[in-house]
Order: sequence, then C-alpha cells, then structure tokens
Amino acid sequence: MMTKGRLEAFTDGVLAIIITIMVLELKVPHGGSFEDLKSLLPIFLSYVLSFIYLAIYWNNHHHMMQTAKHVTGNILWANMHLLFWLSLVPFVTGWMGENHFTSASVFLYGIILLGSAIAYFILQNLIIKSHGEDSILKKALEKDLKGKISPVLYLLGISASFISVWISGVLYILVAIIWLIPDRRIERALKNQKV
Amino acid sequence: MMTKGRLEAFTDGVLAIIITIMVLELKVPHGGSFEDLKSLLPIFLSYVLSFIYLAIYWNNHHHMMQTAKHVTGNILWANMHLLFWLSLVPFVTGWMGENHFTSASVFLYGIILLGSAIAYFILQNLIIKSHGEDSILKKALEKDLKGKISPVLYLLGISASFISVWISGVLYILVAIIWLIPDRRIERALKNQKV
Amino acid sequence: MMTKGRLEAFTDGVLAIIITIMVLELKVPHGGSFEDLKSLLPIFLSYVLSFIYLAIYWNNHHHMMQTAKHVTGNILWANMHLLFWLSLVPFVTGWMGENHFTSASVFLYGIILLGSAIAYFILQNLIIKSHGEDSILKKALEKDLKGKISPVLYLLGISASFISVWISGVLYILVAIIWLIPDRRIERALKNQKV
Amino acid sequence: MMTKGRLEAFTDGVLAIIITIMVLELKVPHGGSFEDLKSLLPIFLSYVLSFIYLAIYWNNHHHMMQTAKHVTGNILWANMHLLFWLSLVPFVTGWMGENHFTSASVFLYGIILLGSAIAYFILQNLIIKSHGEDSILKKALEKDLKGKISPVLYLLGISASFISVWISGVLYILVAIIWLIPDRRIERALKNQKV
Repeated sequence: MMTKGRLEAFTDGVLAIIITIMVLELKVPHGGSFEDLKSLLPIFLSYVLSFIYLAIYWNNHHHMMQTAKHVTGNILWANMHLLFWLSLVPFVTGWMGENHFTSASVFLYGIILLGSAIAYFILQNLIIKSHGEDSILKKALEKDLKGKISPVLYLLGISASFISVWISGVLYILVAIIWLIPDRRIERALKNQKV
Repeated sequence: MMTKGRLEAFTDGVLAIIITIMVLELKVPHGGSFEDLKSLLPIFLSYVLSFIYLAIYWNNHHHMMQTAKHVTGNILWANMHLLFWLSLVPFVTGWMGENHFTSASVFLYGIILLGSAIAYFILQNLIIKSHGEDSILKKALEKDLKGKISPVLYLLGISASFISVWISGVLYILVAIIWLIPDRRIERALKNQKV
Repeated sequence: MMTKGRLEAFTDGVLAIIITIMVLELKVPHGGSFEDLKSLLPIFLSYVLSFIYLAIYWNNHHHMMQTAKHVTGNILWANMHLLFWLSLVPFVTGWMGENHFTSASVFLYGIILLGSAIAYFILQNLIIKSHGEDSILKKALEKDLKGKISPVLYLLGISASFISVWISGVLYILVAIIWLIPDRRIERALKNQKV
Repeated sequence: MMTKGRLEAFTDGVLAIIITIMVLELKVPHGGSFEDLKSLLPIFLSYVLSFIYLAIYWNNHHHMMQTAKHVTGNILWANMHLLFWLSLVPFVTGWMGENHFTSASVFLYGIILLGSAIAYFILQNLIIKSHGEDSILKKALEKDLKGKISPVLYLLGISASFISVWISGVLYILVAIIWLIPDRRIERALKNQKV
C-alpha cells in the first residue's frame, strides 16, 4: 500500500502543464489591430472548450482521490493511462482550431475525449475495487448517470463528424455542460462518512 | 468539505507555468550583439509588468488561502475561472510587446486584467461566504480599498487605450504599485486569531 | 538529514514537464485531413515509447522513495543527475521521430536511455547506502534482475543501430515491456516492514 | 506568520519549468545524421552549464528553507525577485549558445548570474533577520566564503567578456565547481540543533 500524495502531485503537475501549454497554440499575431485577432477565434473557442474539459477532469479526479485511502501499482498505471490521453488534448485542440473544424479534426477530438473517458472509468473501477465493499466512491457513484451517458454522447458526436461538425460540436459541449452542473454526490458521501 | 491542499498545489502549478511560459515570448534573436536585443525591449517591459502582476496574484492567493479552512465545489470552479483569465496573460503580454503597444493590444491587456480581478473577487466572496460570520478573511478585508479601487483604474486604463496608450500604461503600473505596497491585513488577522 | 518531500516534489515537477513537453514535438499540421496526420506517425510512435519510459521512471522513483526515510546532499545531486539525462529524452524523441528512425538518432536514443539507467542505478545505491544494513530497498532489490538486464539490452540496441534500427527498436521496446510487467517487490517489502 | 510549504512548492514548480524549458532551445535538427548535431554543440554546452547552475540554486534553496520555520510577506517577495532573475536564464542560455558565445551574450549571461546571486543574498538575509539571533542559518553561514567570493568572480567574468570570452567562461565554470564541492554547513547545523 502506498500513499496517494505523489500520485496527486504528479497528476496536478501534468494537468497544470497540459492546460497551460494549450494556450501556446494561440500564436501571437504579427499585426496589432483587432482585425488581426479574428483568425484566432476558432483556436480560442477550441481552447475554451478544452480548458473546461480539463478543468472537469481535474475536479473529478480531485473528488475521486479524496475518497481513496491508498493506491496500488495498478492504480498508478491506470492514472498514467488517463494522463496519456489527456496529454493529446492540446494537439487535437490546436489541430481542430487551426483548420476551422474540419470533419477529420472534429472526429479525432471526439476520439481523444472518448479515450480519456474510458481511461477515467478504468481508474475509477480500480480504486473502487481496491477499497472493497465499503468504498465511499462506490456508494457515491451508485447510479453514475453522467458517467454512463457521456461515452454515448461522445460516440454520437464522433459519428456525426462526417455528416455535420455542428452536431458534433453541440454534443461535445453538451457533455461539458452535464458535468458542469453541480454534483454533490462525492461531497455528500464524504460528509456522511464523516471522513 | 474538502481539504485545500490540492487546490493550492494545482494553482501553484498553473501560475508557475504561466509565469515561466511568458519568457518564451522573448525569442532568442539571431544576431549576437547588443544591437540585436533592442527590438526585444518592448516585449521585455511587458514581461516585467506581467511577471509582477502574476506574482501579486500568487501572493494574494497564498494569503487568502491561509485563512481558508476548507473548500467547496463552487470554490474549486471559481478558482478555475480565475486561472482561465490568468492563462491568457502570456498571450496578451506577447501581443502587446511584439506590436509595440498598439491601442488594441493595450485595450485587450486591460480587459484580461479586469477579468482576472473580477474572477478573484468572486473567489474571495465564495470563500468568505463558506466560512460564515467568523471568517478571518472577512475581517481582514473589512474595507478592502485596494480591491475596490483596482477595477476602477483598470476601466479607466481600458477606456484611455484609444486616446493614449501611455495613460493606460501608467494606470496599469499604478495598480501594480498599489498592490506591491506591503499590506499586512491578512497577516495581522491571522496573528490575532492565533491560527 | 533532510526530509524527502521537496526532492519528490521537484522530481514530480520536472518529470511532469518533460512528459508533457514531448507532445509539443507533435506539431499541428497545416492541413485538416487525415492524410495530413500521416507524416506525424513516426513522431507519435516515438512519443508513445518515451511516454512509457518516463512513466516507468516516475513509477520506480515513486516506489523507491517510499522506502527512503531521509535524503542526503549526495542523494539530491544523484537525483539531479538522473533528471539531466531524462531532460534530454524529448530532444532525442523528437529527433528520432522527425527523421524517421535514422541510425544516428536511434543510437543516440539508446545512449540517453543507458545514461538514465546508470544515473538511476547510482541514485538507488546511494539511497541503500545511506539507510544502512536494514535498508528496505536493499531487501526488495536483492536480485534486481530487471536492473541488471536492462543496460545489457540497451547496449545491444545501441550497437545494433548501425546494422538495423529495427533490432534496436525491438530491444528498446523489450526493456519497456520488462518493466511494465507488474513487479510487487517494493510493495511487498514495504508491507512486511509494516511501514 | 505563514507556513513555508507553498513558497517551497511554487519555487519548485518555477525552477522545474525553467530547467526543463531550456531544453526547448535544443531545436530538433532537420537532418538525421551526427553531422547535423554538430551545430547544436555550443547550445548543448550552455545548457549543461545553466542546468548545473539551476540545480545549485534549487539545492541551496532547499537547504536554506529547511532552516526556516516561517515566512513573511517580505520573504515571499524576495523569493519572487530571485525567481525573476532565474526566469531569464533560459533566454540568455539560448542567446549565448545560438550565437557561439559572442562578447555581448557572455556579458549578459554574467549579469543574470550576478543578479540571481544578489537576489539570493537578499532572500538569505531576510530569512536570517526574521528568525532572530538564534537563526540556524546564521550559524551555518558564519563565514560564507562561497557566498562572498561568487559575486567577485562573476564581476571579473563580466568584465573579461570584452577581452576574451574564454576567461569569462572559465570564471563562470569555476563558480559552479566551487558550489558543487560538497558543503555540509547547513546539514551539520541542522543536526546540531536536532531539528
């Protein structure tokens, strides 16, 4: 059994860098008028969406780890797997923004979101398993509607990318909104346990 | 109720990266004489100003969080909102410096400063609210003259950008100086509480 | 005797940045079709391999430091030496990927892996030495087959790079797989000690 | 009185990023043969020197903060001032390396080293002052020969840069070697105090 402190610190570091490195795709334009900013708008919009997604991941990770009492070797690797998918977010964000939302880039963006969601799901299950029947996380997530609906919406968005990238965009934004709606499951479960 | 450790760690990480990434805008010139550095001067000056602003934010954030005993989901999101605005500082700093302080870039720089100030204000209020009437932070900030005067000066600076960027510059520097003047409110309040 | 907290934090920070900076070598292509991604494939494959290597290093470092009770000045420097080698990984990864695995780049990649392995070995021995005969780490690593076989495989891979880069590639991947296989030595040793 | 944890964490973050960002100046060459690496040699040598310097700063900072029991607002700002100088190291390192050690770049490199040394000195004195007569740091640094000789050597190196950059180089390397020689002052002082 290992303590969870360094896993949290490393994850915080990687997420902090990913979220900040994305801003480097907003390349400083050579002209100094508002006109010169216009071409950056699609990149900026991609940035905002990815920033929100990464913030949601950090937030959920934070809540989830609050329920964990220890970590195992498997959990460390599942966490690395999640970070791998998230580390590709700046690339797809830049690609999607710079090419004004082509089908291919919107498709790949969805794939990275889906991969991240699956990686998160694996990590979550390993934490529950390692804490046995009494797992606070398990109780908090009993229904886990959000967790179940997100991959479905991602899949729809990915499929739609070859018909209309607008539909994909709406679906990706929808998932973000679903997660932004305050959700006190873990906070409540922690309170009940008087942890 | 969650512990505040990870919120602090994540914020430290993001601010550390933002402050350091800005220096990448100081692109190494191809010539090796002092003459070749000259064109970097406006970028360097923007860098210094933004470095000071980010240092002030880190410093104030540090002081503020010392008074907090716990964090809520809302506080996590208000903190993310603040980090979003601050993450745009390297971009506007580079844009302003590289284009020798055009009106548009000085205008946008002020907008980002104002946005950050508002985000900080929201965060501060949520922390006070979540700690009830006895909030140390509330007592420390009873008058909060600095917090009230800064947005006014930002607004003046933003408006002035289309008349004279020099006035805007002076106003932005003025706000930084106001915050640099030692301010022991929170330190004193913490001492009184024997925390 | 110093506490180990900051050594861990600094190492986490540097590794988090190294692992994330590598992704910047995946430069966003100007076209927006899948065709435009093709040329990135070798860079992506190098990225995946290096990501796994750095994840292994972080993982092993994490396990190793769990057994350490304190650090000395020598340990701090041995750790810096390790970070120096690892800091060169993004460069060789990018060079190897961008030039489609030329002999020279595959050779250098192996040299950096070997240098990192030697630096890790030195660090490990200093930690064991500073903890005396009862060192948990010493017991956990009694045979340390992986540690002994890796440099041999690296040397073979480095030598093979001028005959066939495919052989080198297979050998480098082999080492990664060896380390990915779950290895509970340290976890078990920690448990036995009831630390 | 504030706790020192976040000051350490933020400093670790900034130093970790500075040390890693420098490696981005080693731009991946387009050719894949050893010949193509040759032009990178001066940049690599600058990188090694700066890496060692930043490692020394981190190491000394770590030792110094181990003796501190609390921090004040002044100490936070003195630390920021140090980080400002150090944040310029990647820029001068890149400039010096890319232009094959011109007088101007070697001069500026020395100025940044001198500025960092002065900032460190100020920080050190503030920590001693805030801990009163019993300061462990004060006792540990009673003679502080290294601290006194370094700025003199920097000044000599800076002056020499217009006569011969070789002399400057030797002097800068000499300072690094002086600090690399194990120095157990603080470790011993901490031990005596049974802290």
